[in-house]
Amino acid sequence: MVERIDGRVVAQLINQATKQRVEHLAQQGRTPGLAVLIVGENPASERYVRMKERQAQRLGIHSELYRFSATTTEAAIIKQINQLNENQKINAILVQAPLPGELRFDRIIATIAPRKDVDGFHPVNVGKLFLNLPGNYPVACTPLGIMTLLNHYRIPLAGKQVVVIGRSAIVGKPLLALLLNANASVSILHQQTINLRTYTKNADVVIVATGHSGTVTTADFKQGACVVDVGQNLDQDQHLIGDVAYDDELSQVGFLTPVPGGVGPMTIAMLMQQTVAMCEWEE
Amino acid sequence: MVERIDGRVVAQLINQATKQRVEHLAQQGRTPGLAVLIVGENPASERYVRMKERQAQRLGIHSELYRFSATTTEAAIIKQINQLNENQKINAILVQAPLPGELRFDRIIATIAPRKDVDGFHPVNVGKLFLNLPGNYPVACTPLGIMTLLNHYRIPLAGKQVVVIGRSAIVGKPLLALLLNANASVSILHQQTINLRTYTKNADVVIVATGHSGTVTTADFKQGACVVDVGQNLDQDQHLIGDVAYDDELSQVGFLTPVPGGVGPMTIAMLMQQTVAMCEWEE
Repeated sequence: MVERIDGRVVAQLINQATKQRVEHLAQQGRTPGLAVLIVGENPASERYVRMKERQAQRLGIHSELYRFSATTTEAAIIKQINQLNENQKINAILVQAPLPGELRFDRIIATIAPRKDVDGFHPVNVGKLFLNLPGNYPVACTPLGIMTLLNHYRIPLAGKQVVVIGRSAIVGKPLLALLLNANASVSILHQQTINLRTYTKNADVVIVATGHSGTVTTADFKQGACVVDVGQNLDQDQHLIGDVAYDDELSQVGFLTPVPGGVGPMTIAMLMQQTVAMCEWEE
Repeated sequence: MVERIDGRVVAQLINQATKQRVEHLAQQGRTPGLAVLIVGENPASERYVRMKERQAQRLGIHSELYRFSATTTEAAIIKQINQLNENQKINAILVQAPLPGELRFDRIIATIAPRKDVDGFHPVNVGKLFLNLPGNYPVACTPLGIMTLLNHYRIPLAGKQVVVIGRSAIVGKPLLALLLNANASVSILHQQTINLRTYTKNADVVIVATGHSGTVTTADFKQGACVVDVGQNLDQDQHLIGDVAYDDELSQVGFLTPVPGGVGPMTIAMLMQQTVAMCEWEE
């Protein structure tokens, strides 16, 4: 029988701990501050940003929202980031992806002060993670959420065969670094991979983050494997579905993160946790 | 029959091209400048540093050597790096690894101006490489040399099964990034990997960079595979041997980098090439 990894429950535990940390900071007269920049009017982005604002409010985190029209310039966004880099009330800055038009996400991210880069996307933070350097630095929130889930369910990683499908800067690559730092043997696969199934069939843990439903099916996994589905796709009926075409009847999988209710709830929980941690690091 | 990848010949071609680029810069009144810092008296380090100095001289690159005793402090080394960061005659700075005693290599490397970090070890350069960002930035020289060899011998990488054994900051990790950027399906393995052979037996390309002779043997590869041996170990008779226990009689390997004469000669050639490139980037 497959065990479903419950991201909602784990996210709630994280949020409770985060709230206590915020209260502890409040006793010292300090409030974590998150600035969110949103550009254009992508409905999914609007939804995520609303969820982030609401969650910040619930946990006692100060949050500010900066809106830009889809026709804004990189310079205008960067000017705002420079101000936020200096702003004492803000210790965490986030630019909601994706950006419309010709705006270069990398260029903009690189102007965030690394100590305020709450998404962990700045090259210096990515480099530190990849090098497994000691010290405090932010790490991409979805990969951090996945590691938290695996840890919570005591899925062993050291020496295990782990496969990551998808190599985005937001999920696949930082996850590769985290898994390697946890001493897993990691294979990273992508659109140009020819023989996906020979990898997944032998893997103890498979993490699927392609953004395409049906990337892998139930038959692609070995018995007892742990399958983490990072997909957030909409089917024809506008229902949220993952990247894995999963069939309970056929599956021999040991653990599975469902969509919805698996990885999804973790991302914002980790964002809030990291916003608070970054405030603590300033001590 | 195995084809031996001749690192000496390729390094010579690289050096010829580098020399021409130096001459071209000289016509503009510019000279690339490399500063090498060496700490303590490790015989292998002394040998590498001498080779680097000699090669720089041959190619017309200005070079400066800074010696520190094994009992020096991090602060003293960092003070020198800060001066070199400002020094107009120096566009490339290198700290010879390993450092003796308690000196923290990471801490010291992080003080090199990223644009002068000729070894590509600074976290921001590592992050850019891992993210595959556009633009000019230095990349670790041994991995760059390996990619140059694979390219020269037209070993296909896109969509291929590639295995990297060893996850050092100097070889394994930057190589993983370069191979992923070349669209290979990459598995990174290390001391905690349990079933090494199941990976190597299926791989089109295996790169061995553990620093331990006999990490893998001839029988561990599939027919026609390309094997890159990064090892530089000394056997009982003080002969240089690689990480692969290779037996010509038993092997079905397609390509092999011999030790010596494979990867070894490439590292200094790439260091010189990158020193010159970094001078050109300043235009």
